[in-house]
Amino acid sequence: MTAQNAFYAQSGGVTAVINASACGVIETARQHPEQIAKVYAGRNGIIGALTEDLIDTSAESDAAIAALRYTPSGAFGSCRYKLKSLEANRREYERLIEVFKAHDIGYFFYNGGGDSADTCHKVSQLSETLGYPVQAIHIPKTVDNDLPITDNCPGFGSVAKYIATSALEASFDVRSMAKTSTKVFVLEVMGRHAGWIAAAGGLIEDQGMPVLILFPEVDFDQARFIAAVKDKVERHGFCTVVVSEGAKYADGRFLAEQGTRDAFGHAQLGGAAPVVANLVKEALGYKFHWAVADYLQRAARHLASKTDVEQAYAMGRAGVEFALAGHNAVMPTIKRLSNDPYAWEVGEAPLAEVANVEKFMPRDFIAADGFGITPACKEYLLPLIQGEDYPPFEHGLPNYVTLRNVAVERKLAPFAL
Amino acid sequence: MTAQNAFYAQSGGVTAVINASACGVIETARQHPEQIAKVYAGRNGIIGALTEDLIDTSAESDAAIAALRYTPSGAFGSCRYKLKSLEANRREYERLIEVFKAHDIGYFFYNGGGDSADTCHKVSQLSETLGYPVQAIHIPKTVDNDLPITDNCPGFGSVAKYIATSALEASFDVRSMAKTSTKVFVLEVMGRHAGWIAAAGGLIEDQGMPVLILFPEVDFDQARFIAAVKDKVERHGFCTVVVSEGAKYADGRFLAEQGTRDAFGHAQLGGAAPVVANLVKEALGYKFHWAVADYLQRAARHLASKTDVEQAYAMGRAGVEFALAGHNAVMPTIKRLSNDPYAWEVGEAPLAEVANVEKFMPRDFIAADGFGITPACKEYLLPLIQGEDYPPFEHGLPNYVTLRNVAVERKLAPFAL
Repeated sequence: MTAQNAFYAQSGGVTAVINASACGVIETARQHPEQIAKVYAGRNGIIGALTEDLIDTSAESDAAIAALRYTPSGAFGSCRYKLKSLEANRREYERLIEVFKAHDIGYFFYNGGGDSADTCHKVSQLSETLGYPVQAIHIPKTVDNDLPITDNCPGFGSVAKYIATSALEASFDVRSMAKTSTKVFVLEVMGRHAGWIAAAGGLIEDQGMPVLILFPEVDFDQARFIAAVKDKVERHGFCTVVVSEGAKYADGRFLAEQGTRDAFGHAQLGGAAPVVANLVKEALGYKFHWAVADYLQRAARHLASKTDVEQAYAMGRAGVEFALAGHNAVMPTIKRLSNDPYAWEVGEAPLAEVANVEKFMPRDFIAADGFGITPACKEYLLPLIQGEDYPPFEHGLPNYVTLRNVAVERKLAPFAL
Repeated sequence: MTAQNAFYAQSGGVTAVINASACGVIETARQHPEQIAKVYAGRNGIIGALTEDLIDTSAESDAAIAALRYTPSGAFGSCRYKLKSLEANRREYERLIEVFKAHDIGYFFYNGGGDSADTCHKVSQLSETLGYPVQAIHIPKTVDNDLPITDNCPGFGSVAKYIATSALEASFDVRSMAKTSTKVFVLEVMGRHAGWIAAAGGLIEDQGMPVLILFPEVDFDQARFIAAVKDKVERHGFCTVVVSEGAKYADGRFLAEQGTRDAFGHAQLGGAAPVVANLVKEALGYKFHWAVADYLQRAARHLASKTDVEQAYAMGRAGVEFALAGHNAVMPTIKRLSNDPYAWEVGEAPLAEVANVEKFMPRDFIAADGFGITPACKEYLLPLIQGEDYPPFEHGLPNYVTLRNVAVERKLAPFAL
């Protein structure tokens, strides 16, 4: 058997550790030159494959590839580009296979969330049909932690650690100011329709901090929320609120969509945090501050979870090992073996069961009043934020790597997206 | 000479390292029991002195006091309470002296910004007049870096490191998404009327990141700003904007005040970042994301600058040493001796020259176009963010200390604020 090339692409929103998975893929592939010749990466994700804009990772030094382990973001570029269904756009899938064939690519590693698992699955199926079989392996990644089967998703643990640490630090701050100044601090976090990231804010309760969480999974009830804030402030002197960007009213309206208009009549500028802070101010008169962490949370490699980094790397490595062992249309998963001490191993899931399934917070992870997390949830979350894995710093700032990203010569005619 | 007690209070917005100054005060005082008997702290700052709500720091173990060095926020509570002028409220100053006298307090260490320097100065003067002389020493603290004479203020270096690191990480993120998604990222930072914190965002330029800064010191010119964003995005594919909360139009209106109304007609919810992001979207159509770091930036002890921690501690220690040497109505300062290698020493400034003077960014620290920083500014900023000084972590989170804060028995009649 002659060695074939591999293709690796990053998909969707990037994370603090998706490059650690890339590092796992490339370092493991380099250990098997008899089976994998070169790893090509898609420039800006799957768009790079469609437009035949491939990056030759063999042009990067071992040191540069090793530095991916501690560099946030997507080193080859990512994209938000969902391939349509096979019926709607068969031409794009055929183009992928054409590009793979032209560059002797026999392995497809797609690093993303639910959508990319679906694409990966279809590529595997279609490549058989078209007579150029490609082994397609999906590598899990999402800060939202919403993929099924795997116990957790690489990327999530680091965001959870960042949000819990930030909420803790801000709570210390507010506690010391509450006598005459800010009594309520509102922190808006990511997570789309799933409350996993918001749940991480609940971890500071065990450090004595009063915290209320607004989950996307729990319909927002303004009166009950205001009563809960009042109770926390009266008992503790202050309160921290962690609100998910996806928090919404029973009728489906997001908290962030208040129909706000600026002086020019433009639609509102966004942000659930200022909305929540203002509701508190209107109802209770408490002085507030609010923060929107946005990209800071998912890019914060300086505060990554060591567990998360290790798992992200392991998923990349396992993806390559599965491919070398002849597996196809699968995704490596994280299987939890025990909580305390935390133990996990690599598992495997068929893509047919992963694609397009979203995993939400189980109801028994959310406290009865809807504003907190249960001991079962803490037991789940705590292992995922364990350990620090600081990047090297130079001149006071993290010394992250920017790759050369040398292009592979094109062989095909251009393709219009 | 018999030992007298000391009084220490934290004032105004807290920082990641104000407790390091408290640590410097208390540890140094403990080394001189022949001159300083006990250090009392004001519960919630100066209000604690006025209401005779004193904390006996001698009830804290050496380990707990040592832990202040890596614990953000104000361990004894702070407050926003500016004493009025002597003429307007002589009664409050007299009360302070009365409390000091009742508790045999001969040293007053006030840890804060410009307002507290003024209070400290007045207490020193009035205590002489009232026949109970107190040595009043001001310990500098402000994230805004706006105190005069001292080269920089403890608290600022850590925020600068946090903002530069966060802007760098978010820029890596945006760079990898810009092909199909976010092209402009807007980060709002603190600093009130001074652009020092915003300036720190300019440090990522040397890492190849396109960044535009909106300083409070430069009138906002919308057309020029939009043109600058367009230029950056066309040349680099993306752009990061760091906007100071104090950025304003030529007529004095803050960017954050756009006269926005929500659906109920309530005044707008605040935030310069969403305003700026929306201006870009309206003018250029670029997809944007924005973040408001708010308290996260000044509480982020997990990413403190080692230089800042050392200087904060040194200011506390120097304050006590000045007092022991008989100085009065002074503030220890940081004197820069050289940039590269960075060297500094403790200086001393009379409070009469410190009180109520604000230090803004010098014009030669701001680039000619008003959107960046000059090499001179980088030379100034870089030493202040050098070195990491991670707190200990336990179970995945920083292990910060919460003191017992045992009250000193009251001796006086209550006092109405």
